Amino acid sequence: MGQVAWKALFLSLFDYKTEKYVIAKNKKVGILYRVVQLSVLAYLVGWVFVVKKGYQDTDTSLQSSVITKLKGVAFTNTSELGERLWDVADYVIPPQGESVFFVMTNLIVTPNQRQATCPESASIPDALCHKDEDCLEGEAVVAGNGVKTGRCLRDRDSTRGTCEILAWCPVEKRSKPKKPLLGSAENFTVYIKNSIRFPKFKFSKMNVLATDNESYLKTCRYSAEHPYCPIFVLGNIVRWAGGDFQEMALGGGVIGIQIEWNCDLDKAPSECNPHYSFSRLDNKSAETSISSGYNFRFAKYYRDAEGVDYRTLIKAYGIRFDVMVNGKAGKFNIIPTVINISSGLALMGAGAFFCDLVLLYLIKKSNFYRGKKYEEVNPIPGSHCLVRHRMGIRAQTSWVGSKHSGGSASWTCASVKPHRCETTPALGGGDQGYCLLPGFPEEKNVL
Amino acid sequence: MGQVAWKALFLSLFDYKTEKYVIAKNKKVGILYRVVQLSVLAYLVGWVFVVKKGYQDTDTSLQSSVITKLKGVAFTNTSELGERLWDVADYVIPPQGESVFFVMTNLIVTPNQRQATCPESASIPDALCHKDEDCLEGEAVVAGNGVKTGRCLRDRDSTRGTCEILAWCPVEKRSKPKKPLLGSAENFTVYIKNSIRFPKFKFSKMNVLATDNESYLKTCRYSAEHPYCPIFVLGNIVRWAGGDFQEMALGGGVIGIQIEWNCDLDKAPSECNPHYSFSRLDNKSAETSISSGYNFRFAKYYRDAEGVDYRTLIKAYGIRFDVMVNGKAGKFNIIPTVINISSGLALMGAGAFFCDLVLLYLIKKSNFYRGKKYEEVNPIPGSHCLVRHRMGIRAQTSWVGSKHSGGSASWTCASVKPHRCETTPALGGGDQGYCLLPGFPEEKNVL
Amino acid sequence: MGQVAWKALFLSLFDYKTEKYVIAKNKKVGILYRVVQLSVLAYLVGWVFVVKKGYQDTDTSLQSSVITKLKGVAFTNTSELGERLWDVADYVIPPQGESVFFVMTNLIVTPNQRQATCPESASIPDALCHKDEDCLEGEAVVAGNGVKTGRCLRDRDSTRGTCEILAWCPVEKRSKPKKPLLGSAENFTVYIKNSIRFPKFKFSKMNVLATDNESYLKTCRYSAEHPYCPIFVLGNIVRWAGGDFQEMALGGGVIGIQIEWNCDLDKAPSECNPHYSFSRLDNKSAETSISSGYNFRFAKYYRDAEGVDYRTLIKAYGIRFDVMVNGKAGKFNIIPTVINISSGLALMGAGAFFCDLVLLYLIKKSNFYRGKKYEEVNPIPGSHCLVRHRMGIRAQTSWVGSKHSGGSASWTCASVKPHRCETTPALGGGDQGYCLLPGFPEEKNVL
Repeated sequence: MGQVAWKALFLSLFDYKTEKYVIAKNKKVGILYRVVQLSVLAYLVGWVFVVKKGYQDTDTSLQSSVITKLKGVAFTNTSELGERLWDVADYVIPPQGESVFFVMTNLIVTPNQRQATCPESASIPDALCHKDEDCLEGEAVVAGNGVKTGRCLRDRDSTRGTCEILAWCPVEKRSKPKKPLLGSAENFTVYIKNSIRFPKFKFSKMNVLATDNESYLKTCRYSAEHPYCPIFVLGNIVRWAGGDFQEMALGGGVIGIQIEWNCDLDKAPSECNPHYSFSRLDNKSAETSISSGYNFRFAKYYRDAEGVDYRTLIKAYGIRFDVMVNGKAGKFNIIPTVINISSGLALMGAGAFFCDLVLLYLIKKSNFYRGKKYEEVNPIPGSHCLVRHRMGIRAQTSWVGSKHSGGSASWTCASVKPHRCETTPALGGGDQGYCLLPGFPEEKNVL
Repeated sequence: MGQVAWKALFLSLFDYKTEKYVIAKNKKVGILYRVVQLSVLAYLVGWVFVVKKGYQDTDTSLQSSVITKLKGVAFTNTSELGERLWDVADYVIPPQGESVFFVMTNLIVTPNQRQATCPESASIPDALCHKDEDCLEGEAVVAGNGVKTGRCLRDRDSTRGTCEILAWCPVEKRSKPKKPLLGSAENFTVYIKNSIRFPKFKFSKMNVLATDNESYLKTCRYSAEHPYCPIFVLGNIVRWAGGDFQEMALGGGVIGIQIEWNCDLDKAPSECNPHYSFSRLDNKSAETSISSGYNFRFAKYYRDAEGVDYRTLIKAYGIRFDVMVNGKAGKFNIIPTVINISSGLALMGAGAFFCDLVLLYLIKKSNFYRGKKYEEVNPIPGSHCLVRHRMGIRAQTSWVGSKHSGGSASWTCASVKPHRCETTPALGGGDQGYCLLPGFPEEKNVL
Repeated sequence: MGQVAWKALFLSLFDYKTEKYVIAKNKKVGILYRVVQLSVLAYLVGWVFVVKKGYQDTDTSLQSSVITKLKGVAFTNTSELGERLWDVADYVIPPQGESVFFVMTNLIVTPNQRQATCPESASIPDALCHKDEDCLEGEAVVAGNGVKTGRCLRDRDSTRGTCEILAWCPVEKRSKPKKPLLGSAENFTVYIKNSIRFPKFKFSKMNVLATDNESYLKTCRYSAEHPYCPIFVLGNIVRWAGGDFQEMALGGGVIGIQIEWNCDLDKAPSECNPHYSFSRLDNKSAETSISSGYNFRFAKYYRDAEGVDYRTLIKAYGIRFDVMVNGKAGKFNIIPTVINISSGLALMGAGAFFCDLVLLYLIKKSNFYRGKKYEEVNPIPGSHCLVRHRMGIRAQTSWVGSKHSGGSASWTCASVKPHRCETTPALGGGDQGYCLLPGFPEEKNVL
């Protein structure tokens, strides 16, 4: 017996259970549902998969290495510096060609500065004074160039002067040239070499065409016609970034060179190409604002015969180029695919839910459908089945199922399906009912 | 005919199929299920959507450009260097104000080094020697400053000495000052300008308030009160990073300035603001460990009248500041929304599954409900139905559908297909009928 | 009454609705479904959770700070420079030990350049000339060193010469040494200190073992045996990157040092360790190509007694090392867990759908099962119920279940709940029944 039960249980494991559906021959809702299904399908296939490539796993953290190399010379002739030629070693800082490089286009030179005492620049508020007491000895000038010595230097006739300071003297004078010194830097070219790697997919590539045609790489210039030429004319970069080179050359600025790699690694590697874009990073919106322009100071140090250090201070204005590389690689992966498909299926479920609402509450006949969809079952605890025999044999034959009075029995019947419960006018009074069951319950003789 | 069939098929496409449900009037399970539903809903709405913003697509790969500018001067008076004033051009390396900048706070100067031979520093184990044989000619001193010449230099009375080396002589002496030279760097300020861009959303912003009040940007200092002021006092940065400036100034160190952009782009751009945090990156935990502190060597090269190079070697101790920008931008996107919602729906499904288990196996009456939920169907090939007519017309007219007493039967019949219905002469008048269902024992002619 | 209705409605909220299932005793489909279920389960547990750690939220945007420090000296003896010793301050550019550092291994020195006029190098096509007219005055030499003065310098006997230019004279001669000057750099060591932080999880770590054994960190060298030693021999790095050091030292090159942090933060922090890999970033594939090798020019500036600037131009060949840090941290998070589980459930749903197709269309008996699964319901508009009252009480007691003519009507009763159906002995034979339904048109006495 137990064995049999186990066998049955085991076999029942391989019974296939499938939801029971009610077919509502209601074309309105039917069409509505089809529309929902179609739109979900369209969203899933069209948007998620085709447009958004939802079947791909993506890697956005790429490793990038940038090498930059500038070319170009400029000739200047100023009262200060005389005839002078500027080459790469002069105007590129730092020289080693990293992803962030600076091209000096304008400069304020303060030659032969030595450690000494001299008047602070009058353009610094904190340095103004009327008498020595205004210059507290040893106090550093706020936003200034040195430390006060305690003396106030005045022209004999004027009442105001500037504190004397210990500093690199003479101090820099704050006059910016009206026109950029190296305006011709507009024609300089920069060669940008960028090799990237998507670690997740172990995929590497360079922005330089693997061409054997060297002369092309030597002579080409990046443009709409040559999107894969890695040589850029500075003037163009600034123009594309929406700036005016001469104006930036004067006050300096920062240009972002964005290299974007959007690679679909399900396609050929050759289709994974960089896309360049250019933008100005110091907010040029407010020209006067403190946050526009770009400059810094550096010094060249010399030592004279007596072994005393002196220096040439250079306030360099120029354009800093930040090469910023980012990218996104996608490759087919089962997990996002499954997740997106499932979300689609779930959506359909939601759609069905919505249609049910319509069917069950919004249309005429909804009462009817509600009744069909929801089958109320409610065991009546006390319910039982009176069974009365009449001509047992015949009963066996002519009546199928248990016989009883009172549908209350129905729960007995209810417990198995399909069932039917009937009542017939009794012969000789009393009522009989019977269930029609497949494999029906044992019958007791009750009276 | 075929046409009709096709038409029917086509029409049936627009029949709405909806699952059939059994309503179990069991309050326990019902409440359980509602609880499950509510908690799933709470999780989905509260956690996933409100807290985690699950309806947003996020971009964590941002492009960032950092410009830094230091201000401040320091005055020192040492036996070595005499009175000396340090300004930005002296102590900032590299000068061009990138995201990683170094402020020299302490240094060991070895002036006037020339290519020559001299004794190696005695603090280098590999350089110690007793006789010339200990100094293999042409061999580089391990972790040393030069190449051995083959001679061992000893004071006449001592037995031990150091190898003579060819190097930049004299070699650096390993004495670190007891107190930082530029301790006053604590008051220097750095102006950090950071412009970011989230490429995925084409969103750019700067950490500098777009204010016309220039004086504010000139005078403000970052603090809890001024969270959007981009000017920082070095001393504060170090303190916030949990370091002691004077101690770091002595041995050097690395401070990370993290700028975090967490932007909800569904809100106004003005609500996307940077958040600064500071941490010490060289593990100060083990003060003695090799991995704490920060210093490097560089040289200034000079050429004397005879055109011979000589240099001043500087071992610079100081604080390196790494400005590290990272961020996360979120914007509403249909795909994650759908995915999260669907996952919620699926969760509800799981909840229903769980409640089913309770209903079908754990409670009293589970037998009953199991019977209700699962309708067993099992075709018996041979099953059929004997039919006998009586008063056909009458049957046709006065009875609709199958004929029998207890109309409740008729739906029973309707409930299964294919079905056929039989009528038998009633005992004592009246007609009875019953359905023969598949899965019924064959019936012989009765009566 | 209304109150009662509300109460009923409220109570009905806690009725548990569960789908009705049809058990198809079809072993084929049953087994098929189990197989589908098992494979989905295997995929979910095995692949998504165990292999892909689908239960984790990941952070790929890490903050990283790198400190590098080189050690080593090299001795050279060339006709140009004579005996010379190179130490860190000489060959490391920039000196401050950032994540990108350059080791000079070869150089072309052009000493004592001054601003003057001299013939352009003959190796530059644009500089070749036959007569002065070929050298347009003031025009910069394309890819050259200076600006043409307008004169063409020819040896008296030859017809071709090169333009005279204003430049830093003499111009650099384009001869690269046959063998690297600092080939011994192969033995230099670099100490790489890398501290990372995963902002999302607030997790920080360093690649330096928190060991108190200092001597280990001083003496160890990175290798398969010492995977956590942060000191690398340059020669090894190049070899591991698949390059030949001497060949790279000659023409220069770029080596990527990838540090990968793959951290499972559900485990102990000590299990989160860096993994190093090395690759060559300048495409060595095409040795001749413009894009291989690495070099740049920089100058040392001097000033002579007369205060005239002159410089030593250095074209530095060498190896640039880019330390690129990337990482991925994963930590348990409820959201991805739920999403993955749900997707699995949805997959099962899809499987069931597939099995349904088999059951309903592909197997014998599919007709039968289709009939079982889909219950067609179709309201017959005109159907109604004849009602006739008689002795309510008796009706109440004697019959349960509906009795009436036209069983087809009975569905009307069945279709709405709660309902009650009564039967009365017929007037003039036959039975009539009527339904008492909520929402039924009240009926008057019909005969």
